[in-house]
Amino acid sequence: MKKTTASTDARVKIIPLGGLEQIGMNMTAFEYEDSIIVVDCGLSFPTDDMLGIDLVLPDITYLKQNIDKVKGFFITHGHEDHIGALPYVLKEVNVPVYATKLTLGIIENKLKEHNMMKQVKRKVIKYGQSVNLGCFRVEFIRTNHSIVDAASLAIFTPAGVIVHTGDFKIDYTPIFGDSADLQRFGELGKKGVLALLCDSTNAIRAGFTSSERTVGHTFDNIFAEHSNSRIIVATFASNVDRVQQIINSACKYGRKVVVEGRSMVNIIGTAMELGYINIPEGTLIDIEQLKNYPDEKTVLITTGSQGESMAALSRMASSIHRKVSIKPGDTVILSSTPIPGNEKAVARIINELSMQGANVIFQDTHVSGHACQEEIKLMYSLVRPKYSVPLHGEFRHRKAQAGIAESLGIPKDNIFMLNSGDVLEMGMEGAAVVDQVTHGAVLVDGLGVGDVGNIVLRDRQNLAQDGIIIVVLTLEKYSNQLLAGPDIVSRGFVYVRESENLMEEAHAVVETATYDCLNKGVTDWGKIKNVIRDSLGDFLWKRMKRSPMILPIIMEVDL
Amino acid sequence: MKKTTASTDARVKIIPLGGLEQIGMNMTAFEYEDSIIVVDCGLSFPTDDMLGIDLVLPDITYLKQNIDKVKGFFITHGHEDHIGALPYVLKEVNVPVYATKLTLGIIENKLKEHNMMKQVKRKVIKYGQSVNLGCFRVEFIRTNHSIVDAASLAIFTPAGVIVHTGDFKIDYTPIFGDSADLQRFGELGKKGVLALLCDSTNAIRAGFTSSERTVGHTFDNIFAEHSNSRIIVATFASNVDRVQQIINSACKYGRKVVVEGRSMVNIIGTAMELGYINIPEGTLIDIEQLKNYPDEKTVLITTGSQGESMAALSRMASSIHRKVSIKPGDTVILSSTPIPGNEKAVARIINELSMQGANVIFQDTHVSGHACQEEIKLMYSLVRPKYSVPLHGEFRHRKAQAGIAESLGIPKDNIFMLNSGDVLEMGMEGAAVVDQVTHGAVLVDGLGVGDVGNIVLRDRQNLAQDGIIIVVLTLEKYSNQLLAGPDIVSRGFVYVRESENLMEEAHAVVETATYDCLNKGVTDWGKIKNVIRDSLGDFLWKRMKRSPMILPIIMEVDL
Repeated sequence: MKKTTASTDARVKIIPLGGLEQIGMNMTAFEYEDSIIVVDCGLSFPTDDMLGIDLVLPDITYLKQNIDKVKGFFITHGHEDHIGALPYVLKEVNVPVYATKLTLGIIENKLKEHNMMKQVKRKVIKYGQSVNLGCFRVEFIRTNHSIVDAASLAIFTPAGVIVHTGDFKIDYTPIFGDSADLQRFGELGKKGVLALLCDSTNAIRAGFTSSERTVGHTFDNIFAEHSNSRIIVATFASNVDRVQQIINSACKYGRKVVVEGRSMVNIIGTAMELGYINIPEGTLIDIEQLKNYPDEKTVLITTGSQGESMAALSRMASSIHRKVSIKPGDTVILSSTPIPGNEKAVARIINELSMQGANVIFQDTHVSGHACQEEIKLMYSLVRPKYSVPLHGEFRHRKAQAGIAESLGIPKDNIFMLNSGDVLEMGMEGAAVVDQVTHGAVLVDGLGVGDVGNIVLRDRQNLAQDGIIIVVLTLEKYSNQLLAGPDIVSRGFVYVRESENLMEEAHAVVETATYDCLNKGVTDWGKIKNVIRDSLGDFLWKRMKRSPMILPIIMEVDL
Repeated sequence: MKKTTASTDARVKIIPLGGLEQIGMNMTAFEYEDSIIVVDCGLSFPTDDMLGIDLVLPDITYLKQNIDKVKGFFITHGHEDHIGALPYVLKEVNVPVYATKLTLGIIENKLKEHNMMKQVKRKVIKYGQSVNLGCFRVEFIRTNHSIVDAASLAIFTPAGVIVHTGDFKIDYTPIFGDSADLQRFGELGKKGVLALLCDSTNAIRAGFTSSERTVGHTFDNIFAEHSNSRIIVATFASNVDRVQQIINSACKYGRKVVVEGRSMVNIIGTAMELGYINIPEGTLIDIEQLKNYPDEKTVLITTGSQGESMAALSRMASSIHRKVSIKPGDTVILSSTPIPGNEKAVARIINELSMQGANVIFQDTHVSGHACQEEIKLMYSLVRPKYSVPLHGEFRHRKAQAGIAESLGIPKDNIFMLNSGDVLEMGMEGAAVVDQVTHGAVLVDGLGVGDVGNIVLRDRQNLAQDGIIIVVLTLEKYSNQLLAGPDIVSRGFVYVRESENLMEEAHAVVETATYDCLNKGVTDWGKIKNVIRDSLGDFLWKRMKRSPMILPIIMEVDL
């Protein structure tokens, strides 16, 4: 049996390890006999209740348990939710990484930061090329997205061909390179595709996502209209095409360009080096040179379009940027729409910029990178898969894609709304979820990976809500005699100076509770702590309707 | 001089005490000689950094300092951001409250909760009626908003007439009562208006806000299309007109109606009692009776359209509601748009409802209650004020209204972008900000009003970020001999069991620091605490890149 020719009784497993319960953390394993390949390896950002957490990684227990089978990572594009977990995961599962040139360039920036360039094997794959790995052959197909060099994957398995779109849109007039390779999708579909794993992010939006090029026309109009003021454009660092268009407008209107913000400088540097952006000689200037040009002859391209408080734009707006301050008359273009959850931060930055006298423009200055309903229909109509597995998006988005798939004639039983960890086994004869593997979220806090979990988070939530009250007392080891305390210390509870009465009453409550225990001859410290916790807790709830964390500590002195 | 006839040298003061830096907390004082009247008395909800805070009230120091001058509160409508602070403020400044009938009904619900019905004087004012109070005459003018019985105010002062729109829109085809009294605005404008204080909330939106009635048509269509399923509609409790339209559709399609959610039940109860809603006999049923009717003959009207985790809809979605669970096939209508900041919570509830198999509808099911650009232009064109003071909205919204005012011919110098606390003095001869009075936010946490401030909040933020480590040791009073400890206790930092090494190393660091101090004969406990805090802090930052709060506590034993 030739490996990549479908056999009627062969069955391949599709195992999403992240990305289905939340935006981000995209990672899907494909398994056939002794081979596993993994598509994408993304992180997600903490939700509001993950206090103090910096990043969230997918749990890769299943890969570690099957480490001998794992052959490699195939990465569809260079966004954090598809590559961000790589440095962490490769430390535990060190297998080769395959990606297009810019994607790999961005990955290499990360590997350098983690000092991992030497030990990680990696290979640039061109559109149309394939990689043979274990029982699989993986072909990279050209597609469009809000970052250049995005790829869909055709995964040839003994059970049939699986098409994984990655994040995609169809842009007939892209800025760099060509439109998505619709012909290849059609060709694959004509020959027969087992399953389509398709991006659902915009599946609740009607119509067709506009071309990136439409934003360029908006920029041209804004540049023409605001020819007397400095222009500052904030956008996503990774949107190289967007930056290209800002540079095009700048050149057209004779402005010098400054690129500012660490991640923006990094990615544009990589894009220039690899030939993904075209900047005419003499256009870019250093931020230090800005003062040598009149305002109306300059453009700043910067990070911070999501209102991130530490990004360059925010620092400019609050005048804590080392080099640039917003001044009255500046034109500031926010070239992005708020990612859900960032709306208030974006509103805040617009207010701050407006207060500094800037003219803030945020309409028609962005297009999405994800396929809307008509593009999803187009993809299904080209690929015509036997099975549909909506990927990438919250439940409601994936459900919407399931509805689209059904409307296009895919039987309901052939559409799989998976959960992370599900093992979907499929072949020409049928498909079903046959198992569940370990999956979940690993929290990164500072340098600690996985040492903060639900109990620690619940403590942080309690502490955040009403603070903490610590009750300390020192007992003699043998006699249980009270040598010192009980003392009360609080943090994050009330202004102690303005609540002297309250704290005195609380102290009396704790003293009574302590003496009650000691006089009754209670020697079990756990019990003493419980009595203190309960009586102080009751008192504070009745008196204040608050529940601070109460932490009794007993010290023991051996006289 | 007749009080309410404008004199050319009289100057009235306008003093916003809240509502300009944030949405909510609306409160504006008007002062002339020995008279102060106050328009609205709202609260706002805590921002993300106000951990553990329940409500935010405006600082009324200025009113308390001038308590003899304060004559009364005039309330424009019954939303929390206009009435919510009343029970707290009236405890300190007990003066009469004037409002329309439904507004006062809703205020009375609050006063009952706070046991304040007896001591607060209040009076229902009809549209077109005036109240004479001190140097002022205040006339209530009919307007439209997302709550019935909203009023604009014409404040006749010795310096001229000031029009305060309150929150408003212009609805030519309202559900209850009549359209805004455009003729009266025009009449006042014709006679001459000194200043217009106008709602800015939607000033960045083009066009004209749709009539509430359009939502009714959507409801009818949805009811017609989903005649086989139970329908659940979530909306704002206070939107009586919206509830009326749901009931209209229910009657038209022969369904019984259950009202669920405490605030919904309260406000609908008040609206029924006062005649603001018309519910045909036999339409309302108790939630207990629901089981006696087929699903397709019932409608639930409920709170929770903003994804509030404790509201009825959320409890139904997660099957913890005592009486109702979402079941496959239910049609759930979210009749609201997310308030900025609530987007993720709303997305979460849509996901949860979809996972339970409900069909969630949220398009064309809501209209705003605030005037868009064309309505603001209409208001300015009727009133034609000498001065413009954009109110209600973030800076960018108010700035947009300032732009509209300017485009309509009001000189830039006559448009005032105020800050809370500003004292804007104006008369026929001119206007200027002449002073600043105390203003700010008073935080309510449980039963405590104002006992949580910046230091406590900063502690809560620190605790939330990386938890707390408490270091306890017992010293002998005179010899400074170490009798017990140092012990380390942490909360919200790491799983101690899985980080044994780390905690052992931390303990060693603390021990070394402590013995260093004691061996050197340091007797200043403050110094010992600092050394412990610094050395442990350095260690944890280097090792973990985390900064938990470190709290050393020294107990003293007198042997």
